[in-house]
Amino acid sequence: MQIVHTIEEIRRVIKEARRQGKSVGLVPTMGYFHEGHASLMRQAKSDNDVVVVSIFVNPIQFGPSEDLDRYPRDLDRDAHIADQAGVDLIFNPLVAEMYPSDYNTYVDVERITEPLCGASRPGHFRGVATVVLKLFNIVMPDRAYFGCKDFQQLKVIQRMVADLDVPVSIVPMPIVREPDGLAMSSRNAYLSAEERSAALVLHRALDMAQSIIGQSDMSPERMAVRVREFIGKEPTAQIEYAEIVDAETLVPAESFDRDTLLALAVRIGKTRLIDNTLLKR
Amino acid sequence: MQIVHTIEEIRRVIKEARRQGKSVGLVPTMGYFHEGHASLMRQAKSDNDVVVVSIFVNPIQFGPSEDLDRYPRDLDRDAHIADQAGVDLIFNPLVAEMYPSDYNTYVDVERITEPLCGASRPGHFRGVATVVLKLFNIVMPDRAYFGCKDFQQLKVIQRMVADLDVPVSIVPMPIVREPDGLAMSSRNAYLSAEERSAALVLHRALDMAQSIIGQSDMSPERMAVRVREFIGKEPTAQIEYAEIVDAETLVPAESFDRDTLLALAVRIGKTRLIDNTLLKR
Repeated sequence: MQIVHTIEEIRRVIKEARRQGKSVGLVPTMGYFHEGHASLMRQAKSDNDVVVVSIFVNPIQFGPSEDLDRYPRDLDRDAHIADQAGVDLIFNPLVAEMYPSDYNTYVDVERITEPLCGASRPGHFRGVATVVLKLFNIVMPDRAYFGCKDFQQLKVIQRMVADLDVPVSIVPMPIVREPDGLAMSSRNAYLSAEERSAALVLHRALDMAQSIIGQSDMSPERMAVRVREFIGKEPTAQIEYAEIVDAETLVPAESFDRDTLLALAVRIGKTRLIDNTLLKR
Repeated sequence: MQIVHTIEEIRRVIKEARRQGKSVGLVPTMGYFHEGHASLMRQAKSDNDVVVVSIFVNPIQFGPSEDLDRYPRDLDRDAHIADQAGVDLIFNPLVAEMYPSDYNTYVDVERITEPLCGASRPGHFRGVATVVLKLFNIVMPDRAYFGCKDFQQLKVIQRMVADLDVPVSIVPMPIVREPDGLAMSSRNAYLSAEERSAALVLHRALDMAQSIIGQSDMSPERMAVRVREFIGKEPTAQIEYAEIVDAETLVPAESFDRDTLLALAVRIGKTRLIDNTLLKR
């Protein structure tokens, strides 16, 4: 496995692979890998000849009061996990390589970026869409892999790719959970022992919601109330949102007739966690 | 020469050319060709194996009170000119092919889009950058050709390509003029005989400015005053802007020490014309 830091170098390596007729898979990440990341890498390896993992903590997707500076980083550990998963190339650029001082271009995906995380993190998805498009243009992969934990991010990328005619196939990958149900996240590293235990409330709320969907007169609105009550019983939990939305448009669902998503963003102490599930009727 | 209307079809043809190792040049246009367009096509033909010309009057770069509906169109005439210039493929999509009803993604290039045309045509360069990026993703050319008459547009595209790491080489092409100096433009078709004559004031103002640059104490500010006075003498001319700017950043020039551009946007009757020149010290 090779680690490269510049756009010029990754382009040179990819060009050579392309010349040999090899297919390329990309797993865009911010590093500090867990089993969720590894599952994307293994899928990419089984679908493509060459797998590139980008590790870049993208400053333009963090708000001014967010955790950019303390976001966990460990390149040695990440390199080991990527190597084990069969990754061929890690692309790990400096911020100045991706955003020179005269940088001025951004990708705006409208509508689908407005609800959920978009409402509390203005500019977040603009930063995500921009960096992902840059990575696509640098690596020019056949396929790119995104986890469903960041469901809205996945939808934003799919919208961008469709709208801008980006010639990359987007592969969504299921959420990977700890044995007790907590969705894997690099930010779980922030949790104290007590918070780690309290954080289970997200996954349990999803299970509870699924279990009551068949009740008579259950509506998305009533279910959302029940979910908020459920999470409210956990003293360290502060709900940012707990919403039942249309899984395509992310606008509030009016019934369970179409595919609906229960999406959660909850602060456990100072740590913001997200989780979601597609509700099965 | 082949005329194709769908993204799927142009991709199929280009893919086959690529498979044969051919290079591809793109000339993005809104059609109604003149000799300026033809000069881009001929350059593209001399640089590339396959030349694609897109003809698409891009609705999202027109403001609500602009000339989208009356913009001149003549596909038969355009096809003949393109064929004569050695073009291999015309890509002429419908609006619904480029912007389906759920379309929601836009490219924002900041700063350089603010002065000059950007000030009077809000959203114009957002529309330009978006459609050009789409065309690049659809055609995936090695090189793309843009005329210098739309100097700010050229700078916007160059900024976008650099910032988003778009793997396309941008080739700027010189302004082509009528024998009497009027810069060629599809919008010249709007001009009555009297207006056609009055329109020469743009080119004459550029010449006048160039002729006085060596005068003692000449500054960009004084030159701009002289240019505005000169154009003001033409009764049917209404100045939208007449500015001397840094040719890289397009902010007002403070001296002639760096490359400076004299940029004009002038209404002759109802027709908005632009022209510019790089001032030679």
